[in-house]
Amino acid sequence: MKPAALWVVAVVVAGLAGVVGGAARPSRGANEDARAIAEGRLPSGYRDWILISVAREEGELDDIRAILGNDRAIKVYRTGTRPFPDGAIIARIAWSYDSSEENNKTFGRQQSFIAGRPKNGVQFMVKDSTRYASTGGWSYAQFDDGKALTDAAKLRNCFECHKAFNDHDFVFTRYAP
Amino acid sequence: MKPAALWVVAVVVAGLAGVVGGAARPSRGANEDARAIAEGRLPSGYRDWILISVAREEGELDDIRAILGNDRAIKVYRTGTRPFPDGAIIARIAWSYDSSEENNKTFGRQQSFIAGRPKNGVQFMVKDSTRYASTGGWSYAQFDDGKALTDAAKLRNCFECHKAFNDHDFVFTRYAP
Repeated sequence: MKPAALWVVAVVVAGLAGVVGGAARPSRGANEDARAIAEGRLPSGYRDWILISVAREEGELDDIRAILGNDRAIKVYRTGTRPFPDGAIIARIAWSYDSSEENNKTFGRQQSFIAGRPKNGVQFMVKDSTRYASTGGWSYAQFDDGKALTDAAKLRNCFECHKAFNDHDFVFTRYAP
Repeated sequence: MKPAALWVVAVVVAGLAGVVGGAARPSRGANEDARAIAEGRLPSGYRDWILISVAREEGELDDIRAILGNDRAIKVYRTGTRPFPDGAIIARIAWSYDSSEENNKTFGRQQSFIAGRPKNGVQFMVKDSTRYASTGGWSYAQFDDGKALTDAAKLRNCFECHKAFNDHDFVFTRYAP
């Protein structure tokens, strides 16, 4: 079995383990959200999570984005007590990077770029140091138009980049106060 | 009295009215937050509000920003039932627009810009259609390093731009799903 295929198996097994195990460890909300993601469903309410930071990616991504965290993730960001605990989830939403003609007209100059249509999917990192030990304790998921990405090679690529950040628990984004 | 001075008086009177009146109209949280802003204090917990959208401003502002809303504001954004009710508050946070060397190194190309240090203050729009009737039903406030801006001319400038958006209740930002 190729590594990519093994990874899919790991994700599926982890998903099932989430259903069967249902450990009391993470709080009910975090547990349910982690389970939803493992089962290929968007966790309800993630869009209400607290903002961690924002960013702009040029190049092929060409988007403007927001990174949100559930309560467990935010607590770590605000207290600085890494590593993230099991049940911490980080979400990345992105939109097209659009020049705003109405804003520019008001400002009297070309300067304003706003979030346009949703773009590049919604991505999640879910922390479970046991289940996802082989990928730094995190699973990586992406939803395009609400549908879970199942391309194992693409998902594996997430970790390939995130592992460069192993000195701060595999997370790119820093909290913007 | 010059219009700018009148506006300061209006803000101060409105602030006092908030203290004395304390009407049951807006919920306790929104009421307290509106009062804090009118009195020149940052409302507690605004950083936990739900994300409305993100943007990048070039030019003199040169920042990347997030716009957050309290529950009343978010409800309107999600249901499309403008105008905003009294007690709706919108916050704008901004940061320096920084090239991320660590992200670029990971991606192998120059593409990533992240939120750096807080910049251009934290701004609020507070809806009260009666108190702030002369400025479209909104008051405008800015906090620099937590300290309320008291320059009436600068605050008046907020409305001068926002009034271009009178067809959607004086608010620039649209909700990014």
